[in-house]
Amino acid sequence: MRERVRDARVGRLATVSPDGRPHLVPLCFALDGEVLYSAVDEKRKRSRRLQRLENIRSRPQVAVIVDHYDEDWTRLWWVRLDGTASVLDPGSEWEHALDLLRAKYEQYRAEPPRGPVIAVGVERWRGWASSDVA
Amino acid sequence: MRERVRDARVGRLATVSPDGRPHLVPLCFALDGEVLYSAVDEKRKRSRRLQRLENIRSRPQVAVIVDHYDEDWTRLWWVRLDGTASVLDPGSEWEHALDLLRAKYEQYRAEPPRGPVIAVGVERWRGWASSDVA
Repeated sequence: MRERVRDARVGRLATVSPDGRPHLVPLCFALDGEVLYSAVDEKRKRSRRLQRLENIRSRPQVAVIVDHYDEDWTRLWWVRLDGTASVLDPGSEWEHALDLLRAKYEQYRAEPPRGPVIAVGVERWRGWASSDVA
Repeated sequence: MRERVRDARVGRLATVSPDGRPHLVPLCFALDGEVLYSAVDEKRKRSRRLQRLENIRSRPQVAVIVDHYDEDWTRLWWVRLDGTASVLDPGSEWEHALDLLRAKYEQYRAEPPRGPVIAVGVERWRGWASSDVA
């Protein structure tokens, strides 16, 4: 389960807005034990006021899903991480997160992200695989 | 944007639990104008008490994301649908949804789903593509 998450190139992050609505974005991430890091690449976004950051500051409980889709439905699987998120500003943990992200994604080595970093402390791992069920 | 969603084979559904935590599952779906349908295939799940259904009954606001990941980050895109979900029990709309799902997925033609169907009335479409930004 952890290897599948560690090796995945993309996941999806769900946050909850201050008024209780779910919000979703795809995210690139690096896993470091029980912490998942993801950079917010502000250059790629139309607005610097990012809903996911507002949501995390208001309601830190988040979920991340990593899954595999295959037309052979006996090969489907997903892993969901539930945890508490925080927004890191430049500093030692932020640098550590960027090191991990650059190590995983060559795209970040070419053009390092400069925005905030989201850190998710994972509290629960849940997994499902089609082959688990008869 | 609609074509990308219509043609996608998988999306991810975010719901919010009664106590305000986000929940995420991958889902197969069929789009019918401003309504997205997804079947809950109970046989594939370990438990009949499905969190997504409990959440929808308690908090019908949901989000669905469809995205494309590519190692060439100039080709990334996503589409997010925000809407209100309901759980359909067998009846005419349920039959209509299953017809659409069987038409889209041959896997459902081989083994039709028999559980409840989630209907999401889409209220807002949001899209982003890497190539949109300079």
